[in-house]
Formats: sequence, structure tokens, C-alpha cells
Amino acid sequence: MHQLTVADLNPAVLNVQYAVRGELAIKAEDLRNKLEAGHDLPFKRVINSNIGNPQQKGLDQPPITFTRQVAALMEYPPLIDLVKDKWPSDVIERAQELQKEIGSIGAYSHSKGVPLIRKHVAQFIEERDGYSSDPEDIFLTGGASAGVSLLLNVLITPHKTGILIPIPQYPLYTATLAQFNGIPLPYHLSEPQGWSTSLHEIEDAIAQGKKDGIAPRALVIINPGNPTGSLLDLETMESVVRLCEKHSLILLADEVYQSNLHSPDTHPFFSFKYVVRKLDSPVGLVSFHSISKGIKGECGRRGGYFECTNFREDVRALLYKMVSVGLCPPLSGQIGVDSMVRPPQPGSPSYALWKEETDTIHGALAQRTKIMTDRLNALPGVSCVQSPGALYLYPRLELPADAVAAARKLGKEPDALYAMELLDETGICVVPGSGFGQKEGEAHYRLTCLCPGVEEYVVALEEFHKKFLAKYSSA
Amino acid sequence: MHQLTVADLNPAVLNVQYAVRGELAIKAEDLRNKLEAGHDLPFKRVINSNIGNPQQKGLDQPPITFTRQVAALMEYPPLIDLVKDKWPSDVIERAQELQKEIGSIGAYSHSKGVPLIRKHVAQFIEERDGYSSDPEDIFLTGGASAGVSLLLNVLITPHKTGILIPIPQYPLYTATLAQFNGIPLPYHLSEPQGWSTSLHEIEDAIAQGKKDGIAPRALVIINPGNPTGSLLDLETMESVVRLCEKHSLILLADEVYQSNLHSPDTHPFFSFKYVVRKLDSPVGLVSFHSISKGIKGECGRRGGYFECTNFREDVRALLYKMVSVGLCPPLSGQIGVDSMVRPPQPGSPSYALWKEETDTIHGALAQRTKIMTDRLNALPGVSCVQSPGALYLYPRLELPADAVAAARKLGKEPDALYAMELLDETGICVVPGSGFGQKEGEAHYRLTCLCPGVEEYVVALEEFHKKFLAKYSSA
Repeated sequence: MHQLTVADLNPAVLNVQYAVRGELAIKAEDLRNKLEAGHDLPFKRVINSNIGNPQQKGLDQPPITFTRQVAALMEYPPLIDLVKDKWPSDVIERAQELQKEIGSIGAYSHSKGVPLIRKHVAQFIEERDGYSSDPEDIFLTGGASAGVSLLLNVLITPHKTGILIPIPQYPLYTATLAQFNGIPLPYHLSEPQGWSTSLHEIEDAIAQGKKDGIAPRALVIINPGNPTGSLLDLETMESVVRLCEKHSLILLADEVYQSNLHSPDTHPFFSFKYVVRKLDSPVGLVSFHSISKGIKGECGRRGGYFECTNFREDVRALLYKMVSVGLCPPLSGQIGVDSMVRPPQPGSPSYALWKEETDTIHGALAQRTKIMTDRLNALPGVSCVQSPGALYLYPRLELPADAVAAARKLGKEPDALYAMELLDETGICVVPGSGFGQKEGEAHYRLTCLCPGVEEYVVALEEFHKKFLAKYSSA
Repeated sequence: MHQLTVADLNPAVLNVQYAVRGELAIKAEDLRNKLEAGHDLPFKRVINSNIGNPQQKGLDQPPITFTRQVAALMEYPPLIDLVKDKWPSDVIERAQELQKEIGSIGAYSHSKGVPLIRKHVAQFIEERDGYSSDPEDIFLTGGASAGVSLLLNVLITPHKTGILIPIPQYPLYTATLAQFNGIPLPYHLSEPQGWSTSLHEIEDAIAQGKKDGIAPRALVIINPGNPTGSLLDLETMESVVRLCEKHSLILLADEVYQSNLHSPDTHPFFSFKYVVRKLDSPVGLVSFHSISKGIKGECGRRGGYFECTNFREDVRALLYKMVSVGLCPPLSGQIGVDSMVRPPQPGSPSYALWKEETDTIHGALAQRTKIMTDRLNALPGVSCVQSPGALYLYPRLELPADAVAAARKLGKEPDALYAMELLDETGICVVPGSGFGQKEGEAHYRLTCLCPGVEEYVVALEEFHKKFLAKYSSA
């Protein structure tokens, strides 16, 4: 009997790479197990700065009380008798309203998500943008990744369709393109312009694709940026929409960090839905959002949504058919979406606590982002773009020639060597730039700005960096 | 600007069909909306017998108290102060144990699922089968469907790989094969033998595939059966494993109904894991399980697992890579899996209530299944195999020639016409046999045995059937 080997499997799947949970993350897991088993290592704990997972152990961003009280009541409705005089009345009312609509959260919902919650999402979008939104255009999903995967699967005719993706990018895109045999058409973001999107680079990528006989079908934009922490201005966004019109591209707007803004007064977020409507553009747009990021950080619930704009009814019906095969997104995530789009309002009993909790999270993130950027920029051979949004920094490294040589000798990218040594020395797990893409010869890494105790954390980064430079400087 | 049309999309996706949530389910949704809007219809409520969704509104199978109390505590840990003297101590202990391991359920877990829960799954399997199980072989999933989709995606090289599927089948399989460009190699189940699996039919399908140049890679078995409600005996299962050895087939065992047994003393369930180990077989096996069925019926949580047996480490690592792109299964589903595999034990404070709740559900399902089968068999032109397991019946219809002609005229399958008229007349939504597959010229439908008020429900089926026969009898 022949035993199944990797060589028997779908070749597309073999090509999938996902560095965020790749070699380094697996090593970090091993190191954590070793620490727990009592091994002596140069650090006391492993810090997973490789992934935007705010509530994980060690980071411990607290969940929003309102969200969780509503969720607890949805899990066990008889609980109401115990809490009705103890929990805020708006929590009780919200849970009762959702229970009336949903019934049990143990039942499958509509495959696009609970109709009432989709209506609330549409209202949230209308308030955000000042333009109408149709609940029928909203699909609730098990996190933004599930939505991206669905859209790429539907848009890609295998081995034919090109998808324009930014470099650096969140590797979900390259991984999913590989899975579905789509062809990446990479365009470079501009590091000197704060990782902004250059129309010129996109045009070049389209031209190159056409030269290679690849039809571009869609353009991926991640805004606020991952891994870069950048934020697009309105003028650039308008040009992007016009470019999509010109080339009949579907615009896939990954906007999951839309509420992670560190200086919203000077650097506000605009959605592509707003821009498309403002320009009265016919561009087909899909905007993805998630409860995993923002101030909720409810990654484990697996909740999110996408809104499709300017989609024909038959295309929307086909998306509905495809989500129906997966039955429905998790109800736990769906009710998480509901409380994301309908937070407590001023005057309601839960508002004061909600405000305090969310202000604390926003404040801590902005403060850490600033401290980390300033201190990284003060290090020799490191430069880091100021980040107005998202959860990440993507510092650039100028590594000594000896380090580059040492890495090559090990068959590694230089930034992968740096990240591996950083993990070994400090327990801090980051993702090397080679996992997101960068220009030939460059080195970067991505780290999250989620770790509390930022002073101690930054000192560890600084000390490691200096030791690394010393180790590989053959002066 | 060219607007995206269905013709631009991935042709594989256009071919996907999923009748369980197809035309009839969409019509049922419309009818429910009409009733709510006050329209006058021939019935008072729509009953969704098209899908195994026990907790949906109108069916209202109550959730298990233990499961939901633990889940409520996981959602909002400070709740413990309010409930610690009011809820059973084993609920509190379980929640604390899980919290200690998991931390917040708002964090991503390990992509294969929380290690401790995988350990508990392995213990459950060991107790069920009497053979060892390795937690590293367990992958928690967002329901069994997510696991099936992953495995098919990995096993199928597009346009080359054949997958043996039973006819009738749960249409997840044909839908997913279409999505990933796999080639179905259908084999017929034997209705006269209680929908058992015939080795002869599988061999024929393999031979036919080979003649067409299609390499068979895997064999799908659904046991207990969906849509048939059948249950395999040990002897047949052993032959199936030997056949997989002979042809080097991966055995994909959909065992999500393993605890839905109506007469377990005379018709016990054996897992394929047990059979593979008993025979000391090297066959590669994937067994799927779910919290959506059984007595839990927690469909909305999206929880399940699969266990792979006799898989090489590199193949397992590739599965891990693929699930990591999707980050992790919903924590709500994962903790649901934990309470499925670790129910309260005799002597523990929650046991009496748990026993009462689960006995009630098992009893009601067995009773309804028997009543419905007997009454359907008493109808002219209907025959229905006795079902020892799962949640469904799959009665066969002998339809009058006039009905067949009327259906053809509408471009419909005769059983689709029957199901459409059943919905219009009674509000009962079932799925026609053409959605699951059947032999040329046959007619069936699948209905769930989940509706309470079985007498009223069966009377509605009977009256409709007689009227339908009268309408289409040109005597």
C-alpha cells in the first residue's frame, strides 16, 4: 500500500507560505514550552510580537466589558435573573433584543449572517461615511481572512487571473493566491513617503502583467497598512479609485485597522466606500472589517464582515451560494460584530466604563507606538517610519556585511537571521521582512505595538540590536 | 468601465451546487418573511426540515445547561462572583480549568486548537475505541465542513484527482469537489439493504475512474448516513478498510452523527479509527466530528475536529500550515468541543440534569424517527428505510406519471416539484433527492426528524401527499 506523501498533494497547497505563523512562531512555541518545563533560557517569558493578538496571555489587553456581558447573556439566557439588578440596563436590553431576533446562538443563522446585525452594520457604515449602505450588500464572516479567502477564490480563474498586491503585504494575500492558483502582481509601497501607495508603481505592475499575458482582476489595498502602519490620504485614495475605473479593477480594501488611529485629528481614516460614493464611481469595491483588531481585539471569536459596493445582483447571489456551503459564520463572532458597530452611546449606563476602557486602549497603543518608533530610530542602522495607524511597526535594518554573509551561509535571509537571534536572546518573536516582501537587498521586520511594559521591552530590543551589530562587525 | 459579471468569475465556483440551502430554502425564507408581514398563507409557520439545525426557532431543542454555563463564564470571568454559590461546582471548576489554560477566549489560540482541548479529544477517542490517540493528530475546526473543505483542498490536484463519494451524499462533498476542481467518482448506496455500502459498487466506480484516466485518491463514507440515516455494521467497515488498503485510498470518514443512535443496543456505532486499529491497518484515515449534531446541536458555535491516523509527519505539518493561514477555529466552538468530549460524569453535581436533558433529546429523536418512518411507509407510493442513526429520513416516492410530466414541463426534477408544492401547501421545507443524488428515474426527499409536535407535522405530510397524488392522477 502506498502511503500518502507530500508529493501526492495539491501542488498549489505546497506553495503556500505564511510567515506570521511560520518557522519563528513555531520556535517561539517550543521556547515557551521549554520555559514552562523549567529550562534555563536567557529570558523569563516569550513575547509574541509576531501577530496582532491583543488579548493573548502576556499581553492581556482586557476585553470590553459591555461586549462580554452581552455575550454571556446570549450564552445562557436564564442568567438574566441573576444579573438584572446588577448589570447595566443597556446590557440587558441589548441581549434581549438580540435573543428575540436570533433565538439560540446554538442555531445556524442565515448564511450571510443574522439579518438584524447586517442592518446594524449598514447603519454603522452610513454613519461613518455619510452615504447609504444596503444590508443585502453586507456579508458577516468568520474574521476578515475568511472574507478575503472567499473573494479571492471567486475572483480567480486558476493560472489566469492576476491580483495586484502591495509589497510589503500581509501574507494572507500571497498565501491565498498560492492556494487558489492566482497570479500575484506585486507593486511596491513607497517607504520614503511613509509607505504610501504610488499610482505609478501600480501602473507599472499592470503593464508588466499585461506584457506577461496576465489579466489583472483586482487591486488589494491595506489601509491602515499592515505591516507598515501607514495611512492613506484622501487624494491618493481618489486616484486609486480612478485607476480602478480605468482598468476595470475590483478594489479589495482591507480596512480592518480603521479604528486603530494614533492621531485621528491630524490623520483621519477615510473608507474607500466613502471615496467611491463621493466620486460617484462605478468601481466594484469590497471592504473588509473585523472585530479582531481595533479596540476590541476579539480575535478568538472569529468575527468580521465585508461590504460589496457596485456589485451586480447575480455576482452577489453567487457569493451567497458560496457562503451557504460553509453554513454560517460563528454566532459568537456575529454578536461581537453587533457590539462593535453599536457601542454604548453617551447617556447610556454602560457608556462611562466603555469610554474609559477604549480610551485606555487607544492611549496605550498610541504611546507605545511613539516610544518604540523614537527609540528604534535612535538606534544605529535602524530607521522606522512614523505610524499613524494599525498595530505594527516595520523598521528597516542596515545590517553589517558580516551578518548578511552569515545569513547566506545558513541559507537564510539576513532579516530572518536577525529575527531568529532576537528570539533566542530576548524571547521576543517578530516576523522578518522577507515574510511580507521588500526590495532586493533590503531588510526589515514587523513587530506589534501591543506589549505592555514598553520600557523594558524596548530596552531588550536595544540591547539585542547593539550586541548583534557588535557580533557581526569585523572592525 | 467593464462591470464584473458572473462570466468573469472562477468557472469552478459557478459549478458549485448546494441544495440544502438552495432554491427551496430561499423560498422558505421568503415565505417566513411574508408570514411575519401578515400575509395570508395556507399555514401558520414555516418549518425548516431542510437542515439539521436543532436549536433553530420553531424547533427549539434546548442547549445543554452545563455547556452553556461554562461558556457564559468563559465569556465573562468576573461572573464567577455572582454564580459561585448558585451554579454547580463542576461548572465553576471546568471554567476555571479552561481559563487557566486558554486565558481570554478573545485571543487567537494555537491554529490546530487549544492544546489542552486536543488532549481531551484524544482521551475521548481512546475511551470510545480502546485504542490510543495522539493529540498531535487532532485538529479542531470551525465545524466539520471546514475540516472536509481543508482535506479536499489539500488532497485534490485540480482536474486530476478523483474522490469516491456515496450517492446519495451530503452535498457538501459535491460542492467542495466542484470548488476545488476535483472529480467525483460516485458509488451508489444500496437502498434495499438499508442504504448500506456495497463494496462492489465502490470497485465499479474505481474501475470506471481508471478507465477514464482518473486517479482515485480518497473514499468518502458518511456513517451514520446523511441523508439516509443508515448505520454500517462492523463487517462492512472492515471490508471498506481492506479496500482502501488495496487501492491506497485515504478514507474520509464523516462521523458527525456518531452519537445520534436510536437503538444503540442493537445498532451500535463503530468508528473507522477503531476498525483501522483493530485490523492494524496502515490506511490513512481522517475522521470528522462536530458539535453541531449529536445531542448538543450547537451549530451556531462552529465547532468540530478531525483526527488523522496513519499520516506522515510532513503531511500533517502541511495541514498545520494551511490551518495557520486561517489563524484559528472559533474559541466558542473549541470550548463546545471540550464539553462534548468531557460531559459531566456520574456523581458530579451537573450530572443529573445533563442526563435528563440528553435522555430527553435522544428519546424524542428516536420516537419521532419511528413515528415518521411508520407513517410514511403507510402512505401509498412512499417507502422509507428504517433509520438507526443520524437526524434524517430519506423516503422514496413513486410519483404519478402526470406529476413527472408536469415537472418536466417546468424544467424541474419530479421530486423538486413535490418539495416545492409541499412547501407552498404546508410550510414544511425539505430537500429533494435530486440535491443528494439518486438513480436515474428515482425520486426521494430528505427531511429532518427534529420537529416537535410530530403528530401535527406528520398529518400535514400525509394530507399533502394524498392531495398531491389526487391532483396528478388522471384516473
